[in-house]
Amino acid sequence: MAYFDNAATTYPKPDAVYQQMDNVYRSIGGSAGRGEHSGSKAIGRLTGELREAIKLLLHCPAKQVMFTPTGTLALNMILQGLLQSGIKNVYITPFEHNAVTRILHHYEQKTGIIVRQLAVKKHNFIYDLQSIKAAFKENKPELVVVSHASNVTGLLAPIEEIFAMSKDFGAYTVADMSQTAGLVDMQVGEIFDFAVFAGHKTLYGPTGISGFVMKPELKLPSILFGGTGYDSANQDMPDRLPEKFEMGTMNISGMAGLHAALAWLQEQGIEHIREREQCNRQRLLELLRKYSFIQLIGISNEADYVGVVSCLVKGISSDSAGMIFNERGIAVRTGLQCAPLAHQFLGTYPAGTVRFSVSYFTSDEDFCELEDALDDIEDNL
Amino acid sequence: MAYFDNAATTYPKPDAVYQQMDNVYRSIGGSAGRGEHSGSKAIGRLTGELREAIKLLLHCPAKQVMFTPTGTLALNMILQGLLQSGIKNVYITPFEHNAVTRILHHYEQKTGIIVRQLAVKKHNFIYDLQSIKAAFKENKPELVVVSHASNVTGLLAPIEEIFAMSKDFGAYTVADMSQTAGLVDMQVGEIFDFAVFAGHKTLYGPTGISGFVMKPELKLPSILFGGTGYDSANQDMPDRLPEKFEMGTMNISGMAGLHAALAWLQEQGIEHIREREQCNRQRLLELLRKYSFIQLIGISNEADYVGVVSCLVKGISSDSAGMIFNERGIAVRTGLQCAPLAHQFLGTYPAGTVRFSVSYFTSDEDFCELEDALDDIEDNL
Repeated sequence: MAYFDNAATTYPKPDAVYQQMDNVYRSIGGSAGRGEHSGSKAIGRLTGELREAIKLLLHCPAKQVMFTPTGTLALNMILQGLLQSGIKNVYITPFEHNAVTRILHHYEQKTGIIVRQLAVKKHNFIYDLQSIKAAFKENKPELVVVSHASNVTGLLAPIEEIFAMSKDFGAYTVADMSQTAGLVDMQVGEIFDFAVFAGHKTLYGPTGISGFVMKPELKLPSILFGGTGYDSANQDMPDRLPEKFEMGTMNISGMAGLHAALAWLQEQGIEHIREREQCNRQRLLELLRKYSFIQLIGISNEADYVGVVSCLVKGISSDSAGMIFNERGIAVRTGLQCAPLAHQFLGTYPAGTVRFSVSYFTSDEDFCELEDALDDIEDNL
Repeated sequence: MAYFDNAATTYPKPDAVYQQMDNVYRSIGGSAGRGEHSGSKAIGRLTGELREAIKLLLHCPAKQVMFTPTGTLALNMILQGLLQSGIKNVYITPFEHNAVTRILHHYEQKTGIIVRQLAVKKHNFIYDLQSIKAAFKENKPELVVVSHASNVTGLLAPIEEIFAMSKDFGAYTVADMSQTAGLVDMQVGEIFDFAVFAGHKTLYGPTGISGFVMKPELKLPSILFGGTGYDSANQDMPDRLPEKFEMGTMNISGMAGLHAALAWLQEQGIEHIREREQCNRQRLLELLRKYSFIQLIGISNEADYVGVVSCLVKGISSDSAGMIFNERGIAVRTGLQCAPLAHQFLGTYPAGTVRFSVSYFTSDEDFCELEDALDDIEDNL
């Protein structure tokens, strides 16, 4: 199988990730923050190192790192926590994932929040900062959520400018870095209030371990409750971070894998990884452009992207097209990719697109297989 | 290290668990329910088999199985979902974990629910079914939550009788089987409304994968929102099970490990595993009873238990005693074990106990090391 579904989860992982998952999980008994024996202490050390590595990566030494099983859960904790404290005016990009929009939709109905979209120019996909500023002046933002890169087209948002402007208006800022942490260097470590990372995507770790980073001085109520191995006599959640948001048993092999992944990232260097991923994106685009039956979606030369490319196959629905690729051994993702809003913006709603996504590890062989498949599809159209 | 902290997480796991985690995660790219390519389909098949294995194990063929990263999260989804629909009268055992009591405490403050304890006789730890019935008559139960086995003393609750009685009064019934699923055969598959399992404890799977089982006809609102890879255009959570409660990316290596663990459980047979675990518990009790400085807590000959034993070390605080054991290579858990309520009942609050817990894999070597440590501690008292 030629794997072009890296935006769902990167595959393969660096070999050290598999190795460390297996080694640590076979050799260490215990649970993080539960007990003081050598096993749980070893896991505690690993967790501490992980927190430091995340802070280093996101340039936010003064922030606190919390681990959650998924980015979706991190977004629930952050957004529901904030929205329960009375926020009404929310801005999002037109490219938010259901992990953001379904939460907001619930509060639109429940507490009457108003969700507005940040302006993006339809012809070149450039964020219209002037219009955004005008909108902020008219309806003061209280919360601004920015998907750093779209999981449908790979489009990058100018998060630095948007967050600086949001802060001028006193809004909370949330960066969804599911498609960018470890790949795109973001220079807003000091500015953002919250940033969410997905361990199993551009961080090259395993599924089951993600998290968020937050300004420790913010008062975010917890929406989930349970044991933390700390302050157990207290029937309220402990006020201390990270325990307040880390209830229940942590995913040990997942943390071990993420630990290895972050070490690998540091070793390679984020710039080198980005460069190689951009080469793979370019190669993918060039290949797809050779076939007249492929129509690329949401691409402009003026905007920046990560290695996610959506397209339509002329005359064939996206789901059918996906099956045609999958039958030829090409793993792609079709339909709405859990981001209906993005497709509404792009004009590809409700059928969606065929999405190809590359990683650092996308190989010559993958591209050759894709080319063979495209040739074969062309012959059979 | 001699590992006596199996109630936190069983260790080691069956070798097949480690093997399958590694094999599956190395060989399959993709995400469950995301995409139609061979990788995500293979994960889909594995997940389907897992659901069937859980239903078989818990004797509930007509129920629906949902996977969550932790048992704590499953309890949040169930209890918060039910409590948000207006329930006021809740009964729990005196042995509930913070994963239950912290949730209830939040709703005591927020919506004024009233939480009462099921009566248990202090001298022999037998559930007083007559008193429970009388209490139910006086204050009709709307929700009854039963920790099947205490994570502090291993005491088993007569869940069949309690749930049958709860159903006579029309209450919702929730079984927390974190310490019993796969170990103690429970004959209430048809009666319970919800049962929670922890993949990494008595099911011998990895951390990061747990879940719950529910009557599919019950209307439980979701408290968490996000992408499910299904019905993506819908901004409400889909009404279909299991998708309604499975938002975000699943833990693939965790599911692979749990799959191997359930196959191993079926192969061994739950009765055989329980028998061996009971032998290990008996051996642990006999060993501990040889030392006059050890005071067992919460044990009676009339009650049933799983392999969890709490004790006090005379003249030494539990935390210090724990360190003394840990220094001698014995992994135990000290303090409140995230269950302050149980310690209030047992009279060991707030200092807690030293907890030893065995598994199927607790070995002769573990017991020899423990005996050496106990001898050494005795010599140095």
